[in-house]
Amino acid sequence: MADIPAKTEIGVTTGPIRGSRKIYVGKHRVAMREIHLEPGSGEPPVRVYDTSGPYTDPNARIDIMAGLPALRRDWILGRGDVEAYDAREVRPEDNGLKGPDRSAGVPQFPNVVKRPLRAKPGMNVSQMHYAKRGIITPEMEYVAERENLGRERLAEYVRDGQDWGASIPDYVTPEFVRDEVARGRAIIPNNINHPESEPMAIGRNFLVKINANIGNSAVASDVASEVDKMVWSIRWGADTVMDLSTGRNIHDTREWILRNSPVPIGTVPIYQALEKVGGIAEELTWEIFRDTLIEQAEQGVDYFTIHAGVRLPYIPMTAKRVTGIVSRGGSIMAKWCLAHHRESFLYERFDEITEIMKAYDIAYSLGDGLRPGSIADANDEAQFAELYTLGELTKRAWEQDVQVMIEGPGHVPMHKIKQNMEKQLEACGEAPFYTLGPLTTDIAPGYDHITSGIGAAMIGWYGTAMLCYVTPKEHLGLPDRDDVKVGVVTYKLAAHAADLAKGHPAAKVRDDALSRARFEFRWRDQFNLSLDPDTAEQYHDQTLPAEGAKTAHFCSMCGPKFCSMKITQEVRDFAAKQNQAADSFLAATPAAAPAEAEAGMAEMSKVFRETGSELYMGAGGREHD
Amino acid sequence: MADIPAKTEIGVTTGPIRGSRKIYVGKHRVAMREIHLEPGSGEPPVRVYDTSGPYTDPNARIDIMAGLPALRRDWILGRGDVEAYDAREVRPEDNGLKGPDRSAGVPQFPNVVKRPLRAKPGMNVSQMHYAKRGIITPEMEYVAERENLGRERLAEYVRDGQDWGASIPDYVTPEFVRDEVARGRAIIPNNINHPESEPMAIGRNFLVKINANIGNSAVASDVASEVDKMVWSIRWGADTVMDLSTGRNIHDTREWILRNSPVPIGTVPIYQALEKVGGIAEELTWEIFRDTLIEQAEQGVDYFTIHAGVRLPYIPMTAKRVTGIVSRGGSIMAKWCLAHHRESFLYERFDEITEIMKAYDIAYSLGDGLRPGSIADANDEAQFAELYTLGELTKRAWEQDVQVMIEGPGHVPMHKIKQNMEKQLEACGEAPFYTLGPLTTDIAPGYDHITSGIGAAMIGWYGTAMLCYVTPKEHLGLPDRDDVKVGVVTYKLAAHAADLAKGHPAAKVRDDALSRARFEFRWRDQFNLSLDPDTAEQYHDQTLPAEGAKTAHFCSMCGPKFCSMKITQEVRDFAAKQNQAADSFLAATPAAAPAEAEAGMAEMSKVFRETGSELYMGAGGREHD
Repeated sequence: MADIPAKTEIGVTTGPIRGSRKIYVGKHRVAMREIHLEPGSGEPPVRVYDTSGPYTDPNARIDIMAGLPALRRDWILGRGDVEAYDAREVRPEDNGLKGPDRSAGVPQFPNVVKRPLRAKPGMNVSQMHYAKRGIITPEMEYVAERENLGRERLAEYVRDGQDWGASIPDYVTPEFVRDEVARGRAIIPNNINHPESEPMAIGRNFLVKINANIGNSAVASDVASEVDKMVWSIRWGADTVMDLSTGRNIHDTREWILRNSPVPIGTVPIYQALEKVGGIAEELTWEIFRDTLIEQAEQGVDYFTIHAGVRLPYIPMTAKRVTGIVSRGGSIMAKWCLAHHRESFLYERFDEITEIMKAYDIAYSLGDGLRPGSIADANDEAQFAELYTLGELTKRAWEQDVQVMIEGPGHVPMHKIKQNMEKQLEACGEAPFYTLGPLTTDIAPGYDHITSGIGAAMIGWYGTAMLCYVTPKEHLGLPDRDDVKVGVVTYKLAAHAADLAKGHPAAKVRDDALSRARFEFRWRDQFNLSLDPDTAEQYHDQTLPAEGAKTAHFCSMCGPKFCSMKITQEVRDFAAKQNQAADSFLAATPAAAPAEAEAGMAEMSKVFRETGSELYMGAGGREHD
Repeated sequence: MADIPAKTEIGVTTGPIRGSRKIYVGKHRVAMREIHLEPGSGEPPVRVYDTSGPYTDPNARIDIMAGLPALRRDWILGRGDVEAYDAREVRPEDNGLKGPDRSAGVPQFPNVVKRPLRAKPGMNVSQMHYAKRGIITPEMEYVAERENLGRERLAEYVRDGQDWGASIPDYVTPEFVRDEVARGRAIIPNNINHPESEPMAIGRNFLVKINANIGNSAVASDVASEVDKMVWSIRWGADTVMDLSTGRNIHDTREWILRNSPVPIGTVPIYQALEKVGGIAEELTWEIFRDTLIEQAEQGVDYFTIHAGVRLPYIPMTAKRVTGIVSRGGSIMAKWCLAHHRESFLYERFDEITEIMKAYDIAYSLGDGLRPGSIADANDEAQFAELYTLGELTKRAWEQDVQVMIEGPGHVPMHKIKQNMEKQLEACGEAPFYTLGPLTTDIAPGYDHITSGIGAAMIGWYGTAMLCYVTPKEHLGLPDRDDVKVGVVTYKLAAHAADLAKGHPAAKVRDDALSRARFEFRWRDQFNLSLDPDTAEQYHDQTLPAEGAKTAHFCSMCGPKFCSMKITQEVRDFAAKQNQAADSFLAATPAAAPAEAEAGMAEMSKVFRETGSELYMGAGGREHD
């Protein structure tokens, strides 16, 4: 149990995930995790997708004061379409402070980039722009390598799934990635000022991704703790992290997170803009919002949630709802629109926002500010009115070759989930869908990671590209470290269940390897192949703590007298010793000629007793009878 | 936090579930739970289905030495078709003991019934038998009253759901219950020797039910702890409980559980039969099995899992599986069949078993001994071969008017779940389906309550009548008290999500009441309406422990400056003050004539500012942006 340090002296969680080692694959040295199985098993190692960055590599030197290496910097500069320029000056209000004194809060990140990059005048540095021009970028090559986990072993597998019209390839080529990005069916969110990020794709023809949210603490004097929220999330599988901080220190906290994050970081810029006007939504202006976009663009935020679909005419549609407007960004914009009785400046200035996005390659995450906050409000007029506007905006962003994904609900009963996916595909031209859950019932606060995990698995199967996690504390309080882990693992299993159901060729390899380990009582392999080896082992040890119980071929779960898995092994041994196929075995059953069958039975019965009908102690896998 | 005693001096958990009180409705005094909401809310109390029995009634006198009152005794005797007779003598081997000394284990239940009931010769006491003859029993009336929760408020609701061909009525009448039981589409499992049970129905046109499994402890000297496993399970919502005990003391432990259980108890009799032959499957005989059925029938077990579909010809079909046979009962019978190379005695003697079932009104739970134990083995030849045999046996049981439900998998990826339901309906003539999960991926041991909760919600929606719970310890170890609660609540939310999606008219009342409470910051109402009020309140208090935070109309989850729910209230107030409908409001937007719109905007803006655009502190419901 000792190989997972809680936090090291550097303040963030490091060390390999139990039972696995980091490997680097291909010309871009794409990081993956390899799980080695018991030598006696004859099983090859299992490669799994790895979001954890250098933190799980014992050979990496982690120094959060220095940040991660700039993996993509040469690629970005090599394209010759960017220029460095003097960054916007950081102001006290960027950190929610009245004066220049930062002593009360988070220290500044050392060596902040003073000259960030942006596209040269007239240039467009988005991956979509390159893709449409037929250029395969290193980012696309990286994504292809990364998505191919397990596919080299595909020959073993018959493709089996229902993909609802997706186009999942047998093997992912860089050209496939390029084509998906060019069509707008996938995005690679990676701001040119976040060169530390490892490229990843969000799209329904790739593995389903998950996002974890983090926020600053009320008293954030310890930057390592703020960074560790991100590190902890990606350790367990978060593909992207959204920084939803509000209040003080948000500029500096974001800088620490970005410089140390190997995954794309998303934000909701309206939150910070609102801070800058003292929390008075009516006082928001386009100029303040625009300034905030530039501020965050220069820091390297990879995608922005922009609630540009909350249009003035839709707001009254929410008045009859049970839970009105539950999106914070949506409600801010609703308030602004009502106060001024004007159309949203996000909608009116959309093309200007897009100009900024393309200069840094920031992806849109078009926010669903009018999503339903309860089962009662699911799939209503306001929700779909906004969705169709998001579809209109998607096309406008695509005209400027800017990458887009679309945010989705929320709270939706199971029978209304599929309609969300279908309408999104129709309205938004197959731009990736990014949903929160959805929660399939409202009656289980404290368990909303599960009420929403059900909806997330289903909508992921139907085609959602990324699932925003929900923790057990949803609706009740702020998640702690354990809650974040539970949320991430729950969403990872939901995403994986979706991949399996879609027939993703890289998915089933891991289930089958774990099932073989389970069947053969390779306990350590079973733990190591699981999404959370620590918890699996801990639960096992609560019943059978002895070290021997992990290597012995039995367990405590069945009584002392029988074990279904052992009996199955006897069935197999028996079949093997008989050296006959199931067909001929079948022929000797009572369904065949009675006399013949009787003779066969007596003979087989004798053989079975001779080949050893002794049972071992215990069993594995209770499963109700 | 003090109103939930862990265990009382009598050794089992008693006391009301937080925020609710027990009520008794109708001529049969059907127990329900009523949740009273804040007086200022103007909301009526919400009635919810209650499985917890007298243990949550502060006015009930609980004495596990005496057992529960025999609610149904007069109904049973009143039909005039039963006779009392001398019970089978309890033998040492019934408790897994070599001699008559019981001192090492569980004491005998005081006042064990020495003269149990059975049908008079030639009589049939099954609910199905009465139903087919057009008789509405008190049990059916009780079920109708119980299932009608919330239906009296149906007028408010438009039926909304996809029921996949189910026939859920707007209102449940006793005649509807009778008809469902007569058709075999629902069962009311209630052995005439378990008169303590409160009648409940399992069928796809009723609320989806859940089962919890319990088992005896290795050292079971404390009977109260054994009884409390059942009491704890039903407190959180288990509709039935299966006693899967093995080894010593199982006869006496079962007696304690039955005498104190208000819910139907199921068992797998082959487990005890195997104990009686020292754990050697080959030595099982029909006589020993039959004796065990009688033993348990006299005690009052309400349904038996019988793996009569594990036929000899199907066993070799499992040899190529990744995880072979994972059902314990299935593997015992497979071993017996192989050892003797004979057809299963459960299959051959099925009609004789049915004779016993009808004499006590025990329902069949036809076991899926060949269910898949991994994603790899889902929906294979062996599984469906057995299912069709279960369909054949269903019809044979129905010929004798014996109630039947069908057990189902197991491990099934999402895209193969629906096929399970469709084939079951087709093969088994709409007999209720009773599934374990299914687990939708194999890679998350430690979280299999969630991997299976996803599958359970889906298959419940498709038509499964009862969902067998899975705890976080599945595949790893024995569940403790917390695991049992998590498993029950997870399955309760999955069953409820299924009811919602089916459009069950009694389901949405609770979601909507909770959502209104959430929107209006009625924190206590939100906790009390939830499936687990204790955990909801505890999670809330971790962030905001002060008592005032539960009554004040704010929370800590958003920053100090905005609150989406408050803003929504402002939208409503604004709309109300304008005293105009959404349509006229829409007409004043920029989509209308520009000059007119500008004037309207200025006016509305003024009104909005005047009506109070002040924001409250904080918000409720984070939900990612």
